[in-house]
Amino acid sequence: MRKLACLAVGLVLTAPLAFAGEGMWPLSNLPVATLQKQFGFTPSPEWIQHVQLASVRLAGGCSGSFVSPDGLVLTNHHCVVGCLEALSTSTRNLMGEFFYADAQDKELKCPDMDVQQLRERTNVTRQVETATAGKSGDAYSKARKAIESELQQHCVNGQSDKWTCQVVSLYHGGQFWLYKYRSYRDVRLVFAPSQQTAYFGGYPDNFDFPRYDYDVSIVRVFVDGKPARTPEYFHMSTQGPKAGELVFTSGNPGSTARDDTIAQLDAIKYPGYPSALMSLSRYQGLLEAFGGESPENARIAQGTLFFVGNAIKSLTGQLAALHDPAPFARKQQQENALRAKVDADPALKKQYGDAWENIAAAQQKLLSISQPYAMIVRQEGFQARLYDIAFTIVLGDYERTLPEAQRIARFRDASLPAVEQQLFSPAPVYPNYDKVRLVSSLTTLRDTMGVDAPISAALFAEASPRQVAENAVANTKLADVAVREQLWKGGEKAIKASGDPMIALAREVLPFYLKYHKLAVDDILATIQANTAKIARARFALYGTSIAPDATFTERVSYGTVEGWPRDGKQVPPFTYMDGLYQHAKGYPPLELTREWLDARSSLDPKTPVNFVSSNDIVGGNSGSPVINRDGVLVGLIFDGNPPSLGGTFWYDGETNRAVAVDSAFILAGLAHVYHAQALVKELIGG
Amino acid sequence: MRKLACLAVGLVLTAPLAFAGEGMWPLSNLPVATLQKQFGFTPSPEWIQHVQLASVRLAGGCSGSFVSPDGLVLTNHHCVVGCLEALSTSTRNLMGEFFYADAQDKELKCPDMDVQQLRERTNVTRQVETATAGKSGDAYSKARKAIESELQQHCVNGQSDKWTCQVVSLYHGGQFWLYKYRSYRDVRLVFAPSQQTAYFGGYPDNFDFPRYDYDVSIVRVFVDGKPARTPEYFHMSTQGPKAGELVFTSGNPGSTARDDTIAQLDAIKYPGYPSALMSLSRYQGLLEAFGGESPENARIAQGTLFFVGNAIKSLTGQLAALHDPAPFARKQQQENALRAKVDADPALKKQYGDAWENIAAAQQKLLSISQPYAMIVRQEGFQARLYDIAFTIVLGDYERTLPEAQRIARFRDASLPAVEQQLFSPAPVYPNYDKVRLVSSLTTLRDTMGVDAPISAALFAEASPRQVAENAVANTKLADVAVREQLWKGGEKAIKASGDPMIALAREVLPFYLKYHKLAVDDILATIQANTAKIARARFALYGTSIAPDATFTERVSYGTVEGWPRDGKQVPPFTYMDGLYQHAKGYPPLELTREWLDARSSLDPKTPVNFVSSNDIVGGNSGSPVINRDGVLVGLIFDGNPPSLGGTFWYDGETNRAVAVDSAFILAGLAHVYHAQALVKELIGG
Repeated sequence: MRKLACLAVGLVLTAPLAFAGEGMWPLSNLPVATLQKQFGFTPSPEWIQHVQLASVRLAGGCSGSFVSPDGLVLTNHHCVVGCLEALSTSTRNLMGEFFYADAQDKELKCPDMDVQQLRERTNVTRQVETATAGKSGDAYSKARKAIESELQQHCVNGQSDKWTCQVVSLYHGGQFWLYKYRSYRDVRLVFAPSQQTAYFGGYPDNFDFPRYDYDVSIVRVFVDGKPARTPEYFHMSTQGPKAGELVFTSGNPGSTARDDTIAQLDAIKYPGYPSALMSLSRYQGLLEAFGGESPENARIAQGTLFFVGNAIKSLTGQLAALHDPAPFARKQQQENALRAKVDADPALKKQYGDAWENIAAAQQKLLSISQPYAMIVRQEGFQARLYDIAFTIVLGDYERTLPEAQRIARFRDASLPAVEQQLFSPAPVYPNYDKVRLVSSLTTLRDTMGVDAPISAALFAEASPRQVAENAVANTKLADVAVREQLWKGGEKAIKASGDPMIALAREVLPFYLKYHKLAVDDILATIQANTAKIARARFALYGTSIAPDATFTERVSYGTVEGWPRDGKQVPPFTYMDGLYQHAKGYPPLELTREWLDARSSLDPKTPVNFVSSNDIVGGNSGSPVINRDGVLVGLIFDGNPPSLGGTFWYDGETNRAVAVDSAFILAGLAHVYHAQALVKELIGG
Repeated sequence: MRKLACLAVGLVLTAPLAFAGEGMWPLSNLPVATLQKQFGFTPSPEWIQHVQLASVRLAGGCSGSFVSPDGLVLTNHHCVVGCLEALSTSTRNLMGEFFYADAQDKELKCPDMDVQQLRERTNVTRQVETATAGKSGDAYSKARKAIESELQQHCVNGQSDKWTCQVVSLYHGGQFWLYKYRSYRDVRLVFAPSQQTAYFGGYPDNFDFPRYDYDVSIVRVFVDGKPARTPEYFHMSTQGPKAGELVFTSGNPGSTARDDTIAQLDAIKYPGYPSALMSLSRYQGLLEAFGGESPENARIAQGTLFFVGNAIKSLTGQLAALHDPAPFARKQQQENALRAKVDADPALKKQYGDAWENIAAAQQKLLSISQPYAMIVRQEGFQARLYDIAFTIVLGDYERTLPEAQRIARFRDASLPAVEQQLFSPAPVYPNYDKVRLVSSLTTLRDTMGVDAPISAALFAEASPRQVAENAVANTKLADVAVREQLWKGGEKAIKASGDPMIALAREVLPFYLKYHKLAVDDILATIQANTAKIARARFALYGTSIAPDATFTERVSYGTVEGWPRDGKQVPPFTYMDGLYQHAKGYPPLELTREWLDARSSLDPKTPVNFVSSNDIVGGNSGSPVINRDGVLVGLIFDGNPPSLGGTFWYDGETNRAVAVDSAFILAGLAHVYHAQALVKELIGG
């Protein structure tokens, strides 16, 4: 821990000043002046439109892009893990082996994917502000839900199988946009390497660089049983980018906290992240022991173990960043400076001056319910796929009886096709896996909330958490998709008549979920949101929109250059090469190369670039984002960040923050020489 | 999180002021004036001598007391878990069932216990200070090791089977004492309830009150095959204490950090405890999943799972206490006040003024090696009993080749009998259990240190952590005690000749262990110690010995009264009763009563006190401590603390900090009416 006292006061900024490369910019507000000034490049409206339409969002939390006119989508391997697991069985392990469909009829349908292409963007700030004017707390929540639902319904216009519409709040309510997406839900797997190749180097190399990962997968979207026509797509470069070259990423960064107040960041430092890390670590240990029991268990737990390890490494790095005194003090100074400017102007002070204290007070309230919120609303107390299914049925039934405008967004009519796609997914469920997770998580719920808490009294009146979990998993019929359909369609009557113990458990949980959901979301978070919007408006008033909004898992473009960064007094070079891949390999995981890579060695050019870093400002959700050059040609595929990028949740440091991408030359070399995917290569680059 | 700004400045103390009840006092420095003034009681030299000789220390980390003239020792159930596990097999589960030997020849020998009675205390401050005068860092370490070893050897006088001698540093080197213990290593189990009864209420009730635990066990020490004569013992009260009564605890509090500087406490807040809690949580998940596989696995993991859960709850509470702004600010004020007083006196400033900065600098160095220190020196990277055995053999061999005065204390000649007792323990080892733990911990080591770290390169040159662990566990012969003996006695030659893969692993680890042990212990911790001693001397100069020294797992007495504490605006009553025990029960764990307690209900008085709280200042290590009244009669048995007591590591708050004890009336009622242990009751109370 460096000490606060070591801060050179001269480095402290009293007003926000963006680093070069900073910002995940909405297409409506690209930093054109900066781009022109620094790089002599001004994105044309056509360039912007092309980027918008060639980029896609994966509803599960990733990004991607069209790479052929016939619906091919390039994304990361780790973005299709859900599909690979769902299509795997004890005899076909798509995580352990590579997959390539050399003809369209061999492409495998992913049971639960939704590829979304942003078609239209409409500024609806005025509509939302009018509808919510003068309201706060619960009344604000209600009014906002109502207007959002109205805008959404109008946008979808009854075609929820085709369109996904979302009201996007930029600057925490400083601006509202209606985004209309073309949803492609018939998504088929074309190519995926084994996880060993995609995640070469494994946990130790994750969030680091030099790297040698082939974190690539290719799917195809279908419409009416035929490949979709996707005339707007990115051409792939066979060369990749050059060092120093200007590159853009286009994707859907999930969430940042750069506009959080110091009170909010303090709550993340403690108890927020330490508590989340304990919970993740316990889960990690559980999965390790479960996976260690047999190869089949290892296969079942592999994907989740990857995501849990990834989250642990990410949060650990973010927590370390928050404990780095220099940027934290800079953050504090920025807040002080903004508050001083607001306080100095009577009009601004009257409108916005109380926002920080209001947020701090709401934050205290949130902390006071943090345990039930994590356990019951975020469902850490109920870690099992069969429980998810039961609770979706029970909560969905409750929500669907409410007027459209009062529902949680997930259960509005327009969103129901996505819910049903997940609910009726034929992906296999694993009772033993669910059992060990549900025993552990229900026990944690009871231990955390206390034996005398109302929820413990309700759930464990007759039996222990272990007994409740074992009984529910052993006797539920929800592994059968037909049973789910019958309950979902049968509604309250079918649910009440069901003797299914998992459904019974979900029904017991429902009132507690609704209570804490309402308290947290409609009361506390709505208050925080309303006051964060005030701060956003104060910033607009003082600085305009010269600062990018926090990430919202919607389309953003960031710019940067291909360059390394200084570490321990040396400069980390921006590229790795094929020969380095083979040198980094050992005879065992996670550094073991698969047979096809060993066999292909002699046919691969040792100087082919493998992975590279650039100063693009990205964050989780950007996985699978295309890296494109000024000509709109795809030169790379984002899959990770370097260690300093973990602080990117809170601030961007242009000196050290780097995005990690797969070089397009490596993608193509692998497809051609390792996987012999000639038809696919031809579709990608012609010839 | 309460906010620093809410602090009433008037409450902040500028000089230390002890709360009533504060302090874990060495027998050489009981707060006699306070006791006389507050309670009209002055402990006589005979009273003190009696308390000293009737109290014992359990080398594993607990306390206890003699309760009969024939060597009976009363302690907690959770203090003999190691013995119960060692004596359990797949057909005899001493954790799951109660044990009572109704005749001496049925008492079972615990393979690895050491009951230590403090016989002599000698102030050796002058000798240690003379030997170390003017020295610092490594030279100080060497000189101190040499004088300690000399004092120890002289004290043991060749009879290491009988005596354990220890140089105890009070006030972090402000005083040194030579303690001479009679070591009883032939320890036999007389009585233990099932863990379900001892730990009734389980994890949710742990570190809380009201409680209903029978956390009791009784062992007997033998000399030459016969019960030891122990004329100094505590009589047990059939009534227990009264509300408001003055009571003392006598025991061995393990460790407190009340003299830590703010820099040290900051390092505990982050990254210290969050990191430790992640590691514990991962281990918890691993044990949960392992234990969930079968009843046999559950039995194997049960004890460790208890200790891991206990540690998690304890550290979580301690971390919360450190984030409580009021006491933390008081701590800061105390440090500021002391530093101001030191700085105001030129002589004191010259001698002690740099101590705080020196500690802060050393603390930074310690943080920079915190990962290898945790993984390699504290052996978090090697969690397996078979590895412990191998490393003890390898490290022991290395240390024993060094001159006595240069060895780690554990391997000095006088300590070798204790090492051998552990090493040659016939307690069963469980290869599957070791395998899952070693795979996980070696993987964590590799992930934490990095694939390219020298230790990873050395250990995993040819195989992955999983492969190394699986091979070592599968092919080691160290489960066989005879093999251990052969290697231990054969020394370097035998070790080098051994093809045992666990020994080979330990040998590869040795140089890394020695490197980081030396760096951490001889360099950094020695610097911290030397400067903490400076602060202690500054405190002596300014405040005398009016403050108790930090806990050192040596004999201390604390005083207090039987009283509840205010919680949520109500007063928690100090006692629970037998009827409450039955009301608290449910039909399932951890609230399930065993058959014998259900059967005995009608013969038990519903008004018998069960557990009670008192304002005694205790901490981990005090488990098993007798609670005695002013007449030296045993009225209770310490086994836990209430939630605010967790802050006791850093400060004592007399308003809320409470120790939790089993009432002596409950102990006797259980033995008589539940376990029908008439011979034992007779030995305890006559009649």
